[in-house]
Amino acid sequence: MLTEVFENVRKNRPLVHNITNYVTVNDCANMLLACGASPIMADDVEDAEEITVICDALNINIGTLNANTIPAMFAAGKKSRELGHPIVLDPVGAGASRIRTDTALKLLREVEPTLVRGNISEIKALLLGDSKTKGVDAAQADLTGQADIEKTVSLAKNFAFKTGAITAVTGAADIVTDGVSVFIIKNGNPMMADVTGTGCQLSAIGAAFIAANPNARLEAAAAAVCAMGLCGEIAYGRLNDADGNATYRDYIIDAMYRLTAEELERGAKYEKL
Amino acid sequence: MLTEVFENVRKNRPLVHNITNYVTVNDCANMLLACGASPIMADDVEDAEEITVICDALNINIGTLNANTIPAMFAAGKKSRELGHPIVLDPVGAGASRIRTDTALKLLREVEPTLVRGNISEIKALLLGDSKTKGVDAAQADLTGQADIEKTVSLAKNFAFKTGAITAVTGAADIVTDGVSVFIIKNGNPMMADVTGTGCQLSAIGAAFIAANPNARLEAAAAAVCAMGLCGEIAYGRLNDADGNATYRDYIIDAMYRLTAEELERGAKYEKL
Amino acid sequence: MLTEVFENVRKNRPLVHNITNYVTVNDCANMLLACGASPIMADDVEDAEEITVICDALNINIGTLNANTIPAMFAAGKKSRELGHPIVLDPVGAGASRIRTDTALKLLREVEPTLVRGNISEIKALLLGDSKTKGVDAAQADLTGQADIEKTVSLAKNFAFKTGAITAVTGAADIVTDGVSVFIIKNGNPMMADVTGTGCQLSAIGAAFIAANPNARLEAAAAAVCAMGLCGEIAYGRLNDADGNATYRDYIIDAMYRLTAEELERGAKYEKL
Repeated sequence: MLTEVFENVRKNRPLVHNITNYVTVNDCANMLLACGASPIMADDVEDAEEITVICDALNINIGTLNANTIPAMFAAGKKSRELGHPIVLDPVGAGASRIRTDTALKLLREVEPTLVRGNISEIKALLLGDSKTKGVDAAQADLTGQADIEKTVSLAKNFAFKTGAITAVTGAADIVTDGVSVFIIKNGNPMMADVTGTGCQLSAIGAAFIAANPNARLEAAAAAVCAMGLCGEIAYGRLNDADGNATYRDYIIDAMYRLTAEELERGAKYEKL
Repeated sequence: MLTEVFENVRKNRPLVHNITNYVTVNDCANMLLACGASPIMADDVEDAEEITVICDALNINIGTLNANTIPAMFAAGKKSRELGHPIVLDPVGAGASRIRTDTALKLLREVEPTLVRGNISEIKALLLGDSKTKGVDAAQADLTGQADIEKTVSLAKNFAFKTGAITAVTGAADIVTDGVSVFIIKNGNPMMADVTGTGCQLSAIGAAFIAANPNARLEAAAAAVCAMGLCGEIAYGRLNDADGNATYRDYIIDAMYRLTAEELERGAKYEKL
Repeated sequence: MLTEVFENVRKNRPLVHNITNYVTVNDCANMLLACGASPIMADDVEDAEEITVICDALNINIGTLNANTIPAMFAAGKKSRELGHPIVLDPVGAGASRIRTDTALKLLREVEPTLVRGNISEIKALLLGDSKTKGVDAAQADLTGQADIEKTVSLAKNFAFKTGAITAVTGAADIVTDGVSVFIIKNGNPMMADVTGTGCQLSAIGAAFIAANPNARLEAAAAAVCAMGLCGEIAYGRLNDADGNATYRDYIIDAMYRLTAEELERGAKYEKL
């Protein structure tokens, strides 16, 4: 399965429109190039709709949303939906402030993303439909990673069922589900949490993988999750005693650049329920 | 002293809210992770106040301030002050334009930062309370680094006395003072000036160090300055003949990631007056 | 020729004001430092004009233009023109949306850039003066790189003649012309297209090279193109089997940091028509 999905990314070279945070945007761009896709960024409302038209997918990340970029998210999102482009929503910090929660919920309703990728506290906040600040509690639940896999599967399935979006809940283990089938993925390395933006990068390539595999969207999302985690493993193996999270950041992107479909097939650790 | 301060950062893992420039923000995020803290960015006025509430410290950097982020700086700043969170102000380019000088001065008055970290020309511009553009002169004074240490100590003490903020003036030698006690710190490497954002990174971890050491704020600020400079030294030692400022950037962050409290204690070069 | 041009950059250390996209801005800053220049960023209309006054050159890149930064581009551009500072325009995505095309055309008319650097589809869109979206077609023409050199030379000369700007059309081969003399440059490596922002970095250092060589602007622009391509070659030579586009990104900047005027003279591959 993964072989074909990954080869399609490299062959089709999807152009991905990103409306994303300015913290990790450069890494998202290089990670998209690394997997074989192309990035373009446009977050002004006058620009976003036209740019989305020439793209193959849209990646919306609310990590540093603001009054100017929110309208661009909706304009691009609605146009993408009209065109049938896959849309990814990364609800960074949903549950931590009213504007983040409300924007994510409104995007879910009005843009109907193809894939939502978040950590457990973000998905939980959106599932509760609660715009009250969760703050530290939610963050800590995520940091401890002690939510057991079964509970997370149930949460993800509920979320997918309620929203119609393929749902990826990433953490110690990653769950990808369309509400019916479930992938449980155990690639990755804990040190990835010490690099800012590995989640953002995953969301970006998720858009590319799905765009390149329109008839296998769930598998494409799962393949992106496996690939990202596997790159984290490969990159970790390259580190020496003096290397830290900055070198690791580069090596993860490097690993994606060098990854072959065969290595992905061989290295992916997943089960499908 | 430094051992305990640094261990507290690693133990308490403070969450630092950054309203900072988009040039060096990614390095600030990875540097915060490297020292054991966690970063979050939110610079819209609708978002900033709520995000600050769930954080342990606030880092305001005016490097690319604009009409939308300035109100967020004040909203987050006032809320942080109300909550007793440590607040860092990095007055990038104060003295170079009216809006930078005026914003920094107003933040000093209304937000009352815990720590102000700048180069000598920025601190001088703010001490003079002068909103007239200093421009090249100020910049050159800083670049030449010929201001002798005694003058800088006097400047920093005056600034600390006038503002009530712990003041860090960084350059060839770094001065950290609360207006009474003074740390003169001689860690670092001149090549750090060839990497964009080492000052921004220092301000960011300054917020984390102080948040993790509420009863030793001056020592925490001094420890952050020592740690940053020491990482510059360690990273420099790793460079080969083909490596330049980009690899150096990563190695500095890597060095912080690997730094132990014992190495910091041993490698710090400071005297306390 | 190149020796003197490059030595002037290192000697004069021009301060370059960048109004650029938030995707590649950090790499632009480090690349400017690597070549011997200094970067400053200011993109708020209240800030941009004063900052430009203290700088030696202005670099305008429309990669993530928006309603707030466009007025800053014009304010800084007009002030720079008034002061006789060299101005670079990088019309990222011209032809892909109305606002990009229109903004670039208006900047050409009202700011009169010294150097315009773009890919063939961007320059073509601006030459046609056409604000209708070109989208995928334009992008593909550029990606295939099959436009032959003679056609590109003719396009670039027409553009330079029409706008009065030194014109650099970069692709498989790079053309730099003032409408009369033409440099055809064949440095570089195809893998540079897998790193986001190598074009942006080139535009940034183009501003620095011209600022440091006011009496040899065309040669300075050509030297910047040669230097960037040569660094791509040197960096490529350092890559091992596990390195990808992220490490390559750093090595390109590293190569500029270590580049000497003699190496540039020796390694540059150009002919002048």
